Amino acid sequence: MARKIALLQLNQTVGDLAGNVGRIETLLTLAAAAGADAAVATELAISGYPPRDLLLQDDFVAACMSAAGTISTPIPLLVGSPLPGKPRQLPGNGALRIDNDGGVREVTRKQLLPTYEVFDEARYFSPDSRPGIVRGLGGLDLGVTICEDAWQHAKLVPSDYQSDPIEQLAAWAGQGVELVATVNLSSSPFHATKQSSRLTVARAAAKTLGHPFLLANQVGGNDDLLFDGHSIAALPNGDVVSAPGWVEGVLLVDLDDFAASVWIAEGSASAAAADFIAVGDEQIIESGGEGELAGGGKSAQTADSVLDLLAAVTVGLRDYCHKSGLAKVVLGMSGGIDSAVAACLAVRAMGPDSVIGISMPSRHSSQHSKDDAQATATALGLEYLVLSIEELHTVAEKRLSRELRRGPALAGENVQARLRGLLVMGIANSRAAMAIATGNKSELAQGYCTLYGDMDGGYAPLGDLWKSEVYALAVALNEEAISQGKPAPITQSTMSKPPSAELSPNQRDDDTLPPYDILDAILQGHIEQGQSEPELVAAGHDPQTVREVLERLARTEHKRWQMPPAPRVSVRAFGQGWRQPLAANHNWRQ
Amino acid sequence: MARKIALLQLNQTVGDLAGNVGRIETLLTLAAAAGADAAVATELAISGYPPRDLLLQDDFVAACMSAAGTISTPIPLLVGSPLPGKPRQLPGNGALRIDNDGGVREVTRKQLLPTYEVFDEARYFSPDSRPGIVRGLGGLDLGVTICEDAWQHAKLVPSDYQSDPIEQLAAWAGQGVELVATVNLSSSPFHATKQSSRLTVARAAAKTLGHPFLLANQVGGNDDLLFDGHSIAALPNGDVVSAPGWVEGVLLVDLDDFAASVWIAEGSASAAAADFIAVGDEQIIESGGEGELAGGGKSAQTADSVLDLLAAVTVGLRDYCHKSGLAKVVLGMSGGIDSAVAACLAVRAMGPDSVIGISMPSRHSSQHSKDDAQATATALGLEYLVLSIEELHTVAEKRLSRELRRGPALAGENVQARLRGLLVMGIANSRAAMAIATGNKSELAQGYCTLYGDMDGGYAPLGDLWKSEVYALAVALNEEAISQGKPAPITQSTMSKPPSAELSPNQRDDDTLPPYDILDAILQGHIEQGQSEPELVAAGHDPQTVREVLERLARTEHKRWQMPPAPRVSVRAFGQGWRQPLAANHNWRQ
Repeated sequence: MARKIALLQLNQTVGDLAGNVGRIETLLTLAAAAGADAAVATELAISGYPPRDLLLQDDFVAACMSAAGTISTPIPLLVGSPLPGKPRQLPGNGALRIDNDGGVREVTRKQLLPTYEVFDEARYFSPDSRPGIVRGLGGLDLGVTICEDAWQHAKLVPSDYQSDPIEQLAAWAGQGVELVATVNLSSSPFHATKQSSRLTVARAAAKTLGHPFLLANQVGGNDDLLFDGHSIAALPNGDVVSAPGWVEGVLLVDLDDFAASVWIAEGSASAAAADFIAVGDEQIIESGGEGELAGGGKSAQTADSVLDLLAAVTVGLRDYCHKSGLAKVVLGMSGGIDSAVAACLAVRAMGPDSVIGISMPSRHSSQHSKDDAQATATALGLEYLVLSIEELHTVAEKRLSRELRRGPALAGENVQARLRGLLVMGIANSRAAMAIATGNKSELAQGYCTLYGDMDGGYAPLGDLWKSEVYALAVALNEEAISQGKPAPITQSTMSKPPSAELSPNQRDDDTLPPYDILDAILQGHIEQGQSEPELVAAGHDPQTVREVLERLARTEHKRWQMPPAPRVSVRAFGQGWRQPLAANHNWRQ
Repeated sequence: MARKIALLQLNQTVGDLAGNVGRIETLLTLAAAAGADAAVATELAISGYPPRDLLLQDDFVAACMSAAGTISTPIPLLVGSPLPGKPRQLPGNGALRIDNDGGVREVTRKQLLPTYEVFDEARYFSPDSRPGIVRGLGGLDLGVTICEDAWQHAKLVPSDYQSDPIEQLAAWAGQGVELVATVNLSSSPFHATKQSSRLTVARAAAKTLGHPFLLANQVGGNDDLLFDGHSIAALPNGDVVSAPGWVEGVLLVDLDDFAASVWIAEGSASAAAADFIAVGDEQIIESGGEGELAGGGKSAQTADSVLDLLAAVTVGLRDYCHKSGLAKVVLGMSGGIDSAVAACLAVRAMGPDSVIGISMPSRHSSQHSKDDAQATATALGLEYLVLSIEELHTVAEKRLSRELRRGPALAGENVQARLRGLLVMGIANSRAAMAIATGNKSELAQGYCTLYGDMDGGYAPLGDLWKSEVYALAVALNEEAISQGKPAPITQSTMSKPPSAELSPNQRDDDTLPPYDILDAILQGHIEQGQSEPELVAAGHDPQTVREVLERLARTEHKRWQMPPAPRVSVRAFGQGWRQPLAANHNWRQ
């Protein structure tokens, strides 16, 4: 009889303890029905990841333990939860064993606490110092690791830890402890090429341990973090089975016949074959791995990677709204590419009845802009309002006439963007909707946007996407619509016209900024790969352009600290996750 | 001949390496002229504290080392600087020895890396594991610690570290190493009662070590962090000498005649006696100490503590502007207490010629509001503009009429606040000025403010002050003006009228919020002392009021993530430093 371990790929909500327990129980039922011997849930599955400052409340940690105690399971379970700390110590990021007799026992606590990029775990947890082992879980003896615990071994961490829990487990095995497999409870956030890194981690661990390595990963969005799922299992020979991304479900790993592993999603009539990758088939996963943190950046956009990005930002917006109790979103629609793509994403995430698009033309708006916005709105079937800002603009200019005459043209341009922000927020407030900001990372990183104007909104779905990625999503969204027999929502005119803010006559983005392909390459090199000014110039970029781009970047600091959260899709984001002191931008030449 | 160590109390700017070196050299000259044998600068004095993500740039750390090498000193110096990390390791937060022959040598790296509240050091530094000792610095053998290294010993840390560098040094001394004193390079941020905590730390260290303990602290504001200076030295018997707060200068500690220690400020003709506190005189420092992190909160407001707060927020605003290269600030003046105090602070920080106040009356503005704002502006001598929003308000209401009719009254109220934001930002943009937001912590924590309206601004000088503290500052500001023979800037009417947003007829804050004394007590208990809902009720607060206050607090999350930085003056701030996940506020009842 084959030995089977179920990896529960869960979409948990931070703080929703009862709901999180319910989702665990639902997947446990599927796993048991499919013949699993034991189940492994994700890191901090009880609390949801990342719980952040909730962990500083003792009553929250206690409530997590109570919630874990209510889990009713037909098969033994390993589940991640915050565990109370010792006196004068922070809590642990732990794994609990829950048996079908209701017993709850601590198994281990995370040793390696990532504290870089989006991670702040040293702020919240005390580390353990010993590797985790569980005996007789559904008859199986298993090594137990939690997320980062496995990453040091593959050197896929930006700086080294003092210990390597995979080596520790391998050493135990050398002492006569016979482990059937090692499992890993993860909440490993998404970014492009992350899945290939996870594959490298799992293969490296399985090879060293000499037995299968199984990783259960959280899926879905929580605040600005996205989790892609893609739970995986690897054999020492490099064979891998993988769950799909962006959906909840169970990866049932057959330890005795790896290729017979299956994927079981709730509501589907039957299990599907899991994605099996034998050694030598690696081309179906993007390469990247090793170089990732050392400057690999994103690999070239492939059709698959664009679809993955589309799933990422859609799930991010959907989960942000649903988990925060927001039923409706509202956005300005200018006829440009950003707001067109944002409108498509909003409809894809929330449905057309939950989206309000507002056209707010001014004297500078071109007829094609008004037509393009209307065409997108009609194709998507969302509620569409047209509110001209002309009269408001005229009155505001009169009110500020002396100031606007003496100041730079920018002051007058910002007035228009802020009047639009006022209308969007007025409608958001009257409808109990959330405004979304439609800016992309390229323009946000250049400050080419108006604070309290087009930056208004509780979430920026395109905020971590380069302009070139926005165009790629536009193509994919149109193709998707056509394949479903619907009209393409984004017009050819929107796709092909030169980007313009339309805040002054015949304005074009490239009056101020370099062409977006050049801008994106410089910003990506600097932000994601950490290239300095001399390194960017050495890479072939025009020195004057590099200097101007980096100076605009440095001048955005006041805007940056007030940006809406955006779904994290890159190795290193601009905005929320990129913390530079304000004063330093004036004093230190990057 | 007496042995003397100079503590350099430096106001450093993050990233301004040449400027930081210049300030160090200026104070070194003063110290040498006064007969110091050696000098001790502050933590990360070369880079300024906190350098945050600059530390992730290798070229920044290298530039700090180069800058340290340019220091020309007449006496041996210990100075804090980022030090390059080993391969695959983060940099160190270190101390360099710079001798008058120009030699630069590493002495030690910080062992305890605070990663709580405003601190993120585990994100940026690798810890050292051995205590620091320097031999023959100006003929003296000294123990060397860096800020947090000394705090574990006094148990004034929220959770314990694995080691105690003060105990380590004491053990070394037991091995026959004769240290004359132990020094501490600090960048220890301000909050109310912090100085008494530092006193406790210094005395505990001196007592255990059996020799003097000398702490040099940074002064001034960097971004949202404030440093009060107040460098101190303690003897094993508990005697202390202390530098003044909020000014740069040298505390010259006489190791052989403690009471003969002096304070030397640049530009002053002669040295002043340092503040000497013999054991038994402790009442002149506020009590608090031990309980601080465990829930002591702020001590009652005394005249001294209000003046300290006034210095704190003035220095914070001044340094934020000057270090960011901002020459002018602009703010709305409503006639209410918050904008009146903010205007006074702006003038105190920047001078009247650098402040623009704007009155923006509407149909709901009372005559006393207009008169009070005018009176404050006149008394302060700032540039004062009156721009009615009436016509804009009428046009905006017409534009949004259908929406405003169907929505809550709040939607219409926000329109007014946003029109004012539009005018303030229009003037800020035309004058190259920074808008400051005038909200206080009590209303911000209740969401009683308009996002993209009165929350507009690059800095919120009152953002970490309770409403009751704003009133206390108002009294102090009036007293200061009168003592200088100037008119009191804040009218009696502003001081005594019931707070109102004046966004609808006869509106009062206490229509929506509890009276501010009750609100402040509940919020302070919850945010600063971590009291849960049951604990607040047990402390005597009305259960229904507590529930409503905590629910409003939870609903502010979208605003909170977009708040301007505010000077940190409390143990635990609301806003920037209080990170709770958004979704959790809907799912977890605090």
